[in-house]
Amino acid sequence: MSLTEEQRAEIEAQRAESAATRRATVPALEDMLYRAIPVLDHGFVRVVDYMGDDGAVVQAARVSYGRGTRRVSEDAGLIRYLMRHRHTTPFEMCEIKYHVKLPIFVARQWIRHRTANVNEYSARYSILDREFYLPAPEHLAAQSEVNRQGRGAVLEGDEAAQVFELLRSDASRCYDHYVDMLNEGADGAPADPGRQGLARELARMNLTLNTYTQWYWKCDLHNLLHFLSLRADVHAQYEIRAYAEAMLATVQAWVPATFAAFRDYRLGAVNFSAAMLAVLRRMLAGEDVAQEGSGLSQREWGEMMGVLGR
Amino acid sequence: MSLTEEQRAEIEAQRAESAATRRATVPALEDMLYRAIPVLDHGFVRVVDYMGDDGAVVQAARVSYGRGTRRVSEDAGLIRYLMRHRHTTPFEMCEIKYHVKLPIFVARQWIRHRTANVNEYSARYSILDREFYLPAPEHLAAQSEVNRQGRGAVLEGDEAAQVFELLRSDASRCYDHYVDMLNEGADGAPADPGRQGLARELARMNLTLNTYTQWYWKCDLHNLLHFLSLRADVHAQYEIRAYAEAMLATVQAWVPATFAAFRDYRLGAVNFSAAMLAVLRRMLAGEDVAQEGSGLSQREWGEMMGVLGR
Amino acid sequence: MSLTEEQRAEIEAQRAESAATRRATVPALEDMLYRAIPVLDHGFVRVVDYMGDDGAVVQAARVSYGRGTRRVSEDAGLIRYLMRHRHTTPFEMCEIKYHVKLPIFVARQWIRHRTANVNEYSARYSILDREFYLPAPEHLAAQSEVNRQGRGAVLEGDEAAQVFELLRSDASRCYDHYVDMLNEGADGAPADPGRQGLARELARMNLTLNTYTQWYWKCDLHNLLHFLSLRADVHAQYEIRAYAEAMLATVQAWVPATFAAFRDYRLGAVNFSAAMLAVLRRMLAGEDVAQEGSGLSQREWGEMMGVLGR
Amino acid sequence: MSLTEEQRAEIEAQRAESAATRRATVPALEDMLYRAIPVLDHGFVRVVDYMGDDGAVVQAARVSYGRGTRRVSEDAGLIRYLMRHRHTTPFEMCEIKYHVKLPIFVARQWIRHRTANVNEYSARYSILDREFYLPAPEHLAAQSEVNRQGRGAVLEGDEAAQVFELLRSDASRCYDHYVDMLNEGADGAPADPGRQGLARELARMNLTLNTYTQWYWKCDLHNLLHFLSLRADVHAQYEIRAYAEAMLATVQAWVPATFAAFRDYRLGAVNFSAAMLAVLRRMLAGEDVAQEGSGLSQREWGEMMGVLGR
Repeated sequence: MSLTEEQRAEIEAQRAESAATRRATVPALEDMLYRAIPVLDHGFVRVVDYMGDDGAVVQAARVSYGRGTRRVSEDAGLIRYLMRHRHTTPFEMCEIKYHVKLPIFVARQWIRHRTANVNEYSARYSILDREFYLPAPEHLAAQSEVNRQGRGAVLEGDEAAQVFELLRSDASRCYDHYVDMLNEGADGAPADPGRQGLARELARMNLTLNTYTQWYWKCDLHNLLHFLSLRADVHAQYEIRAYAEAMLATVQAWVPATFAAFRDYRLGAVNFSAAMLAVLRRMLAGEDVAQEGSGLSQREWGEMMGVLGR
Repeated sequence: MSLTEEQRAEIEAQRAESAATRRATVPALEDMLYRAIPVLDHGFVRVVDYMGDDGAVVQAARVSYGRGTRRVSEDAGLIRYLMRHRHTTPFEMCEIKYHVKLPIFVARQWIRHRTANVNEYSARYSILDREFYLPAPEHLAAQSEVNRQGRGAVLEGDEAAQVFELLRSDASRCYDHYVDMLNEGADGAPADPGRQGLARELARMNLTLNTYTQWYWKCDLHNLLHFLSLRADVHAQYEIRAYAEAMLATVQAWVPATFAAFRDYRLGAVNFSAAMLAVLRRMLAGEDVAQEGSGLSQREWGEMMGVLGR
Repeated sequence: MSLTEEQRAEIEAQRAESAATRRATVPALEDMLYRAIPVLDHGFVRVVDYMGDDGAVVQAARVSYGRGTRRVSEDAGLIRYLMRHRHTTPFEMCEIKYHVKLPIFVARQWIRHRTANVNEYSARYSILDREFYLPAPEHLAAQSEVNRQGRGAVLEGDEAAQVFELLRSDASRCYDHYVDMLNEGADGAPADPGRQGLARELARMNLTLNTYTQWYWKCDLHNLLHFLSLRADVHAQYEIRAYAEAMLATVQAWVPATFAAFRDYRLGAVNFSAAMLAVLRRMLAGEDVAQEGSGLSQREWGEMMGVLGR
Repeated sequence: MSLTEEQRAEIEAQRAESAATRRATVPALEDMLYRAIPVLDHGFVRVVDYMGDDGAVVQAARVSYGRGTRRVSEDAGLIRYLMRHRHTTPFEMCEIKYHVKLPIFVARQWIRHRTANVNEYSARYSILDREFYLPAPEHLAAQSEVNRQGRGAVLEGDEAAQVFELLRSDASRCYDHYVDMLNEGADGAPADPGRQGLARELARMNLTLNTYTQWYWKCDLHNLLHFLSLRADVHAQYEIRAYAEAMLATVQAWVPATFAAFRDYRLGAVNFSAAMLAVLRRMLAGEDVAQEGSGLSQREWGEMMGVLGR
């Protein structure tokens, strides 16, 4: 993670300010506020604002005049009930805002979640930093042999070194040429007075997809949990999963009761189809069920047995 | 507005609590927080939470590490620029949550704004209060003769009295029968032990559309301004406009620079079509333009001259 | 269902028209097109347009240049895969539009699904028909004793008759007064020349919530399936479930492969939490698991055993 | 535009198929259906499906049982009225689906419009084509001196040649290394058996932002018009504007009455703020108004006088 001295100072200045508020406030999240949590080699996630807490979920579910809370245990029970029965709207009553620095190819996956508010750093207007993602050796992997959209064994030896060097040198060269084409000097004057310089909105097209961008991203708790259930999943690409995992920690600090219910009913849960349920009932009745005749494809059978630990 | 003693106590209890926060905080809105602003005869709007301030708009537009603000005048200038050029995403970075009590027919118009989060009091689960909207004499009006979806002259004399009495007695009778069909005693036991009582989800269908309901409604600032530009407009039905106007006051307290820009570029602004613009240029060139030959329909001509104060 | 002769004629006239198209076309749905499927006592659902078919899901998933289809069995397999792994975007590539006549209290539940396009008949602009929903005897039920938002035993004898009569007479009287307050004659002139008549936007508030309204409702296939999974569910109120069930039949005619996958992976599927999964593994290992010590609440335990048929 | 022979054949095969339908059908759009309209050097837009026509807007606005149309002139008048008064929901009742080939940096602007359905070609799953956008000489321009996010004078002579060569060679080299790192032979076996090959989801990060991607993109007419009003605007970056302009032609063929209203009330229209309106009134009253004392900033004054052709 590469913050400049000025950026660190801005963050610390903001952390030093405090005000009195009548709003729901979560000390554990206040502790984290504004601080950048490092992700990948140059990225970060930092919480820059939030609205509501576990009590706000309960308050909305009850449409109450006050805090809505009764006892902590009752509230947790209600939250579990809402999560189990997919009563999703009370979870929309909490909101969180992140500032994220992330590679462009990760941003392209992330932005597919449409129910969020986004302000991205504009490369039409400004110049991007000289930062690009280069995978650590343990993340430089071959195509998976079983999953057409996943990765398999880690690359080794010369191949790993060559790949790393290609990624590094191509990103560097493209960035250097980007700066060169822009031809902007430190003071706004042309670096080379003999050239006009290419417009920023054009020059940026020379950058590689591992270049870092950044954005402000704001989302309600329900849609955030949906995002996390997909992106913290083992099928998600490692690079976006790294962000999702950093964000899970912020959710746990923010709304612990909701997080516990989410872990049980979403992250650790499994969906059984009608056909799988029929198989399960036969198995529980003591029958020795085989894939053939189960109504499940070989692939589904494998997935089901995996889940059941068989 | 009819709050019970218990509700008032809950509100005051919540107002009495205070916590320290590092988040953007707006004292003028904190002053209003939780307090019910009366609307119509039994309704209210009250702010129950908020996220961000004018500075948050600037911060997101600049994707900055700190508060994003420079000087107040610069910030206001940027906010005006964003509003003028319809750069809407930075305004999505602020969020506000209201608790609203409103007649069902108003709720049906309101809910058409889809980009908001809503938790409504459930009449499948609970029993609605005995409250219905009855227009004040000055709002009991005839159908407009020029606008097929508006109202015209105020009703007078006997007709006004009769209409009021019909609205009052039908709402009352329907509510009384609702309670009667429910057959629920104060202690949960049947009021009349000889009857089962009708399910709440069915009994509610006997209520009239002026019965009050309530909800938690949460929205980002951009979509809130869009809502207000439509619902605080003179073409909106008076009853929803009354809510919009109460909400305008909360927006002004919350984000004064954004509100000023909104008033200038939205509320008080006018859209001229290509054909109107052509007429305008001819008029400014000193030409005496008539509707005939203007390319505008009589209706459009009238609207345009009205706007120009001619 | 009450269509006027004129409406029936309009529908038949539209059914009689035919045009040649290069678009994906589904004969089974063309057969249904425009015809009203009766729901409840006066309501209906009718398909008025559609875009795409099962092949369009496949085409989008493959981002192909032609139809995208290979063999029917391969396509069905891909559709099952997409449904199982919640790859939802290809299902958004199909769209359907319904014209629905429905009681207002059902419309209020329905409209909570925000990802749809809606045009409702405007009671500010027009006069509603004299039609209101009155439950058939078998749907006139008491409050459930186990579910705070459901219904239980059917009402019997005098109570049933009295409730029915209250619903009928209140709705009738309110409608009659609505018409009376409007004071509109058949020719646009006042019915009673001595009165101005109340504006439509005000008079409508006197109607009861079982009055029928109507709308055009358009939705993509993914969001339609989400709507149907919630509203065709046994926990949904009967009255909206009746609409969902009529719509299921149209989906089955339209996209049979998607419908089959939906039935297996959504309608008939079950979600096991992490804690339930742990119980399941112990049961399959032959252990005699009891609720106590299972990590499940009594309620969850009951739900789980119900699903497993134990 | 570079379609393979196979792709052309698939498109022609689909164009050759025809079916009878009862749905609203637009011959002018049927003529265009599936055909790729070239955009930029290798991109295209092609309409792959549509739902509704001008009549569907009218039908929904009237919530009618049949086609909803009366006379063509009446329908056009209603459509103009809806457009003028921002009654947007009837325009949501039409839907169109495009298949688009576009550079990644254009896709990143485009995807910010959230109210659309998208399936993008997956570079986790498949290998991207060797195609990248290289601006034609007349589009290779310097940074604008007046607009921080626009372009100004066209580059000339050596600088133009050098910039073009940098863009070309960097994109080529990055693509070649992408293929090299993938190490995939034509038959699925490794190109170089001594290497494992890098996973597709990783290798893609080496590509430059002018590499072409493709997607299916589906949108309702209202949101499409909003997209076009922003992206066919002179402030939009040329490269996305080129797509918007190609799409405008498809909208004109599809819904001519809506398109005419859109051109008048949106594309050619102008928004005057409250302060501008005050200035206008003074000017029309014959007053000689100057910027100073007008209440407008110099920038706003300039924009206003530009619009008025002064």
